[in-house]
Amino acid sequence: MPGPVFEPQNPDFEAATRESFARQGLMSHLGIEIVEVQPGFVALEVPFSEALTQQHGHFHGGVMGAIGDSAAGYAAFTLTPPGSAVVSVEYKINMTAPGDGERLIARGTVKRAGRTLIVTNADVFVEKAGTQSLCATILQTIMVLPANETRPAG
Amino acid sequence: MPGPVFEPQNPDFEAATRESFARQGLMSHLGIEIVEVQPGFVALEVPFSEALTQQHGHFHGGVMGAIGDSAAGYAAFTLTPPGSAVVSVEYKINMTAPGDGERLIARGTVKRAGRTLIVTNADVFVEKAGTQSLCATILQTIMVLPANETRPAG
Amino acid sequence: MPGPVFEPQNPDFEAATRESFARQGLMSHLGIEIVEVQPGFVALEVPFSEALTQQHGHFHGGVMGAIGDSAAGYAAFTLTPPGSAVVSVEYKINMTAPGDGERLIARGTVKRAGRTLIVTNADVFVEKAGTQSLCATILQTIMVLPANETRPAG
Amino acid sequence: MPGPVFEPQNPDFEAATRESFARQGLMSHLGIEIVEVQPGFVALEVPFSEALTQQHGHFHGGVMGAIGDSAAGYAAFTLTPPGSAVVSVEYKINMTAPGDGERLIARGTVKRAGRTLIVTNADVFVEKAGTQSLCATILQTIMVLPANETRPAG
Repeated sequence: MPGPVFEPQNPDFEAATRESFARQGLMSHLGIEIVEVQPGFVALEVPFSEALTQQHGHFHGGVMGAIGDSAAGYAAFTLTPPGSAVVSVEYKINMTAPGDGERLIARGTVKRAGRTLIVTNADVFVEKAGTQSLCATILQTIMVLPANETRPAG
Repeated sequence: MPGPVFEPQNPDFEAATRESFARQGLMSHLGIEIVEVQPGFVALEVPFSEALTQQHGHFHGGVMGAIGDSAAGYAAFTLTPPGSAVVSVEYKINMTAPGDGERLIARGTVKRAGRTLIVTNADVFVEKAGTQSLCATILQTIMVLPANETRPAG
Repeated sequence: MPGPVFEPQNPDFEAATRESFARQGLMSHLGIEIVEVQPGFVALEVPFSEALTQQHGHFHGGVMGAIGDSAAGYAAFTLTPPGSAVVSVEYKINMTAPGDGERLIARGTVKRAGRTLIVTNADVFVEKAGTQSLCATILQTIMVLPANETRPAG
Repeated sequence: MPGPVFEPQNPDFEAATRESFARQGLMSHLGIEIVEVQPGFVALEVPFSEALTQQHGHFHGGVMGAIGDSAAGYAAFTLTPPGSAVVSVEYKINMTAPGDGERLIARGTVKRAGRTLIVTNADVFVEKAGTQSLCATILQTIMVLPANETRPAG
């Protein structure tokens, strides 16, 4: 079944999302790119490199966490009023398979959008020889910080 | 109160831990270093750099997740039999303060060591002008893979 | 999009699931009933009563946790070999709305079925005047205990 | 090492905590009692009964979740201003051992107290023949609702 349909509060949600993403030094350092932005949905991708490995030469769980956390957080960000910021309050990630492949793809979605808190999911897939397999799944809580507030209210 | 005291099953647990850590390309790429290894305890550190930032110029939550997940996972690894591998089944992380400082320090500890599953914690601190503040806390589940088994049994 | 389709390993999975559920004193004490069993899917329900309330007179989060944990755990159980037992390794629950209504419905599904570990989800809905609203969502790890093993391998 | 020391904002924190707890129908229905209240700390207990069992006759994980969630949430509540309410945003629980014993004891503590969000832990112990063993551990996020606000701001 399809998920809920969301009406963005910011008509420039896509530009705002891409602009915020571009300011994250870590995303650039890891080679993570933003590939799709919809209301309540963001997809990110990263190609394999030795710089992203764990001890067995596969994608490190830390990369799965970073890409999934970001995809889910930016999915929430697409639904916030102009000028808002978001912070990750917390997330849980299950690693369901080794990250053995050429690319990771993370798809973040909004589960429930409240005024202050937004609950999100992200699924992270590893692509190998053209087949995508689930390698991690995330359940996350995002806090919305209204415009002009630059740090967590928590 | 002090935590439980653990007897390592591998007399070379420290060398095995440092050797496994050294094979993780991601740790090197992020600049994370291993600074202490005890039975059931591992501390990791990483200095600040622009490569590790989120959109406000502080340490990215993805770095807190990667360093905390690794500290906790290697704390578990110190208690496993020779030749074992460990995989992160899942973890939850709460971000409790912005990562505003010169350094992150992650301290991973073992909460309960079973034969197949080990439950761990990690606290991540950000150091600014000599003061350390908690910025993230993790509760993690690790699966032990016996020697000669190279992938998750799950 | 629909979830994965599962082939049960136990031809009597439905009877086994209902029989195990019936032996849980807590489910009976809380008034939770099993209403649907499919491969990789279980639905549970509980009517409102004063015995299930928090301090504002709504369903207590503890009931959302108990019904969601059970629905997800039994969804995993439907996919296990005959004679197996399952234990909850851990779960995370987000409470997304007050439990204000006449009934809770929990729908547990399997996200990824491994041999030893099964990752599951459950959504918990509260029904009020015929409308169901999401009030909690769960991401859970289940461990499979083979036949004749009666306690956690962990 | 001892945890942080907290200054309560409500001089009547203990009476307010016990009074709120007494209004929860579920706690009474399960037989859970409040045994200690300190700033940032609450302990709860429940004796074994058939009404609290899973399919093997031990304490059900749903009881561990309910008692741990409540102990941690009320630990947070002790630190809130007069008239405040608290709601559980989310929690994660690891079940570390079967609940085989005569009594469960949950000890909730505050990890980090913010203005809007409070991060807490709870450890749940099962007592058998005078010995207490850890059977579950919780990491939780609590939201503070100021006086006169009666439902989640989220």
